[in-house]
Amino acid sequence: MNKLNLKWILPLLFLFLAISPIGAIAQENAAEAATEVVAQTNMMDTIQHLSDGQKYYRAIHIMAMLLLGFGFLMVFVRKYGRSAITATFLLVSVSIPAYILLMNSGIFGTEKVSEIDGLILSEFAAASLLITAGAVLGRLKMWQYILLGVLFIPAYMLNEYIMLGDGFGLVQSGSFIDVGGSIVIHAFGAIFGIGVAISMTTKDEFNTEIEADFTSDRFSLLGSMILWVFWPSFCAALVPLAEVAHTAINVILALSGATIITYLFTTWLRGKIDAADIANASLAGGVAIGSVCNTASPAEAIVIGLVAGAISTMGFALVQSRLEKGLKLIDTCGVSNLHGIPGLFGGLAALVVIPNINVSAQLTGIGLTIGIAIIAGLVSGKILSFTGKRKTPYVDNEEFGVDD
Amino acid sequence: MNKLNLKWILPLLFLFLAISPIGAIAQENAAEAATEVVAQTNMMDTIQHLSDGQKYYRAIHIMAMLLLGFGFLMVFVRKYGRSAITATFLLVSVSIPAYILLMNSGIFGTEKVSEIDGLILSEFAAASLLITAGAVLGRLKMWQYILLGVLFIPAYMLNEYIMLGDGFGLVQSGSFIDVGGSIVIHAFGAIFGIGVAISMTTKDEFNTEIEADFTSDRFSLLGSMILWVFWPSFCAALVPLAEVAHTAINVILALSGATIITYLFTTWLRGKIDAADIANASLAGGVAIGSVCNTASPAEAIVIGLVAGAISTMGFALVQSRLEKGLKLIDTCGVSNLHGIPGLFGGLAALVVIPNINVSAQLTGIGLTIGIAIIAGLVSGKILSFTGKRKTPYVDNEEFGVDD
Amino acid sequence: MNKLNLKWILPLLFLFLAISPIGAIAQENAAEAATEVVAQTNMMDTIQHLSDGQKYYRAIHIMAMLLLGFGFLMVFVRKYGRSAITATFLLVSVSIPAYILLMNSGIFGTEKVSEIDGLILSEFAAASLLITAGAVLGRLKMWQYILLGVLFIPAYMLNEYIMLGDGFGLVQSGSFIDVGGSIVIHAFGAIFGIGVAISMTTKDEFNTEIEADFTSDRFSLLGSMILWVFWPSFCAALVPLAEVAHTAINVILALSGATIITYLFTTWLRGKIDAADIANASLAGGVAIGSVCNTASPAEAIVIGLVAGAISTMGFALVQSRLEKGLKLIDTCGVSNLHGIPGLFGGLAALVVIPNINVSAQLTGIGLTIGIAIIAGLVSGKILSFTGKRKTPYVDNEEFGVDD
Repeated sequence: MNKLNLKWILPLLFLFLAISPIGAIAQENAAEAATEVVAQTNMMDTIQHLSDGQKYYRAIHIMAMLLLGFGFLMVFVRKYGRSAITATFLLVSVSIPAYILLMNSGIFGTEKVSEIDGLILSEFAAASLLITAGAVLGRLKMWQYILLGVLFIPAYMLNEYIMLGDGFGLVQSGSFIDVGGSIVIHAFGAIFGIGVAISMTTKDEFNTEIEADFTSDRFSLLGSMILWVFWPSFCAALVPLAEVAHTAINVILALSGATIITYLFTTWLRGKIDAADIANASLAGGVAIGSVCNTASPAEAIVIGLVAGAISTMGFALVQSRLEKGLKLIDTCGVSNLHGIPGLFGGLAALVVIPNINVSAQLTGIGLTIGIAIIAGLVSGKILSFTGKRKTPYVDNEEFGVDD
Repeated sequence: MNKLNLKWILPLLFLFLAISPIGAIAQENAAEAATEVVAQTNMMDTIQHLSDGQKYYRAIHIMAMLLLGFGFLMVFVRKYGRSAITATFLLVSVSIPAYILLMNSGIFGTEKVSEIDGLILSEFAAASLLITAGAVLGRLKMWQYILLGVLFIPAYMLNEYIMLGDGFGLVQSGSFIDVGGSIVIHAFGAIFGIGVAISMTTKDEFNTEIEADFTSDRFSLLGSMILWVFWPSFCAALVPLAEVAHTAINVILALSGATIITYLFTTWLRGKIDAADIANASLAGGVAIGSVCNTASPAEAIVIGLVAGAISTMGFALVQSRLEKGLKLIDTCGVSNLHGIPGLFGGLAALVVIPNINVSAQLTGIGLTIGIAIIAGLVSGKILSFTGKRKTPYVDNEEFGVDD
Repeated sequence: MNKLNLKWILPLLFLFLAISPIGAIAQENAAEAATEVVAQTNMMDTIQHLSDGQKYYRAIHIMAMLLLGFGFLMVFVRKYGRSAITATFLLVSVSIPAYILLMNSGIFGTEKVSEIDGLILSEFAAASLLITAGAVLGRLKMWQYILLGVLFIPAYMLNEYIMLGDGFGLVQSGSFIDVGGSIVIHAFGAIFGIGVAISMTTKDEFNTEIEADFTSDRFSLLGSMILWVFWPSFCAALVPLAEVAHTAINVILALSGATIITYLFTTWLRGKIDAADIANASLAGGVAIGSVCNTASPAEAIVIGLVAGAISTMGFALVQSRLEKGLKLIDTCGVSNLHGIPGLFGGLAALVVIPNINVSAQLTGIGLTIGIAIIAGLVSGKILSFTGKRKTPYVDNEEFGVDD
């Protein structure tokens, strides 16, 4: 019953926000936008619109990554495919409106961004949330994913505000280098997820195997490829127009390096190729190139990709099972190996790649991100575990009206 | 034999058109375009090309929706996957050239549009046709989908001409508000499809269950996500450059609202989550926001999405089986619940959202669309039923060279 | 052991290149690009960036074709899905960096292209390589796909240099018409692949059936649709901004024509519909329109598509088995029917479509491409066969850690 109430609170919250002052602010913005359109009489405006218009396509590419990419990557759990996709739908549908409404409320900084930049920032938040969800995939009830989103977004926005918006004066504005989000998106999401997993994992879950099969692997590789294809747009989403092509090439080179080394390492470490390694660790190049995606040289991009792919594959093949026993947690999708370690590596790589980087700001930023993520994750996991547990993890049929 | 002749008429028709005066007009346009390229010497031209160039990407996004989105959404029928995809291929491949050729013929109005606008308009027609086909999916022979396309396109263009091109002076030009096609694309396609289904449904079809399974559900959810991701480009395809971002955000908010409410309603109404509800009703927000996608405020967009998702889920869970018995028809994909009712709701929502809307023109437009669609659908269904029936509905192996 | 060494040579080669003078050149380019950004103060620069920015999206569309399109089209082999996807990942990840590094080395011509043009050219090379790989799919060990890429790229670049870069003065610069790559991408890749297959095919392979099933067919049709959707961006990738829309419409009309005729011919020639014919021959229109995609009229585009689809379907249904016995080779994906013959047809169609074409240059170019491709393919196949053979073709579990 308590749960039922929780379920109904969310749409009511939406309705409330829709008619509240926050909604009204958004409406004013819309009115301003409409006025601007009428006033658009000179060429500079048109060129600005053309430039913003191009960002729109990067925003759509990121949306493809969120729903199709993350969603299908998580379909590798054989009997949990419908649930993984539905959860992805819900996580995106909660986090993007929540981010936009909170942003318009001005709680985290007052800097105004354009509509399209706001959309892209909300998608970044959704990406980070999906990473968090990957850590506990299959072990939440469906409505708990929604609750996870509601708990996650404010914490994410607080961290983003400190790192990039000069929040509380902790990290000097413009000093923390993380254009493509290795730290604020990937590492934050992964560490938050580990925090949730620590608070939540039960003994039963240790005894339940996570099964993949022939077809779930193909769906998972589909999701992986979609992430690979559109990753350049993720990293280049907010870089200046003139840097888009260079950024894209760097991202592609990093992903290529990671993909090749993943194949070599999975064969070397396991004797045979592991499809999950290919689907996941190949993407570590994209994670790690994030911080320096627009400033690295092509040669640096390849090397970052090779290193990231290698450490990610080692994480999946060697570290994961030990880490899980040591920390008493299950990380369903291995997000610590794909987003956690490679993300931190990417943030640190900036110290080598960027000349005259503010070392102290970069290290402070990384440290604070880890701290905020782990604390917020542990607290969120505790709250989630108070609201009940699934009977059987990793199966659709506990909640879906099917029996296969 | 009669059927064989029909099959061969279509490519001959193509060949005829290719060498006919209609083709020649198209060729002239091409020549003009080529001359324009040569003459392009000043910056205003370049900026126009840049703006048109951005429309191109929205056109490609719509194509992804047509083939991948609608195509795979319809793969939910377990044993009919190859057929659903092949039918989608054929419906798109017939309707786009047919629309372009008829448009160039000038039968429906003489207004000239740019090449890229023509392509987008033809894709809108194809979308509407795919909705119609969804109503009778699995119950046409493969070549009958082609015939359906040939019957559908002129009716669609007649309706479009009346609503948006001042055809016969029935609806004052510019007064009917339907930027993203809630009425002229979605409702028209759904009602046309209901008309076809009424004329065609047999008793045998009532006794044949439409089976889904584990894997067909995952494919269907893939199609659904592709539609969700690219829906902003569908609605924003023809809006002015400066309104693209605002339109996109509205569409995303409407889809988010519909997705969340669909989860809540499917759980509430059925006790368990229904994968088909998630795959379909989540998209009702995109259907309903169409008419006012560029003018609504974000708050209005969320509310429209919530309402649309709710009524669509109620349609699937409560109304469909009664409607089918009452009207003696099977609506295979439930297009009345996804495109019909939410489309009409979207068109009516414009009466609330748009200040100083021409109420009479809006209501006249909606009424005429319903009338034209149902009559043309009934007639088309009659014609289709004269050309023969499948032996067994919903199976690939009646027409494909396979036996699984 | 020998093989193990080979495997490790590749990443070392990457590392070497990354720190070598070639890498340094790339780095200089990056520095120049960064300086340009700073210097970008006037509007003409911005407009150039906007135009290049639009090319970026076509480059991403092509990447979707390479990984998702070609990758999933090849998943039709039932038990080889994970391998086909992994091979696609590796082929792309080797060929794009290799092309970019060799291009920056200046071995094949010294003409400088922009970063984004360089990326697109490298993707064209990857597409051609994937076509080659389709001919021997399932019969290489995983690391041999990497070796195939290393052997292929220099041969491809040599041919490209002769056809389009005035290499050795063999084909007059600008005289050879092949905007969308019917000859230099599709026919070259197919014929190279036939060459490899001739050198490699064993008797055992003739006795092993290539099995598809219900689900592998659906994945393959997914890949096919992705190729169809983004094909306009492939052909229009490097055409002037003002010709993009016209080119896109031509490609869509050609694909539509091919799709319809494929359905008619597969039914006519086989009695029933063959899913592989639909997935493959429908794309022949895109292959064949390549050479004249920006210059053909819409009517010509439809006719080219109809003819290409017809000959491709006849190839799959009638010619393939005879050709394989005659030439003692297995062409796993039938690339000769999809890319070989339709590609050559497209190159020849330019003789009819383009007024005042340099007939001799066009025929010389086609002839030289055939010659270079077959010789380089035969040699590469010989080299590959020296490095060992798989035990069982077309199965994942020889190399993957799974047993289904």
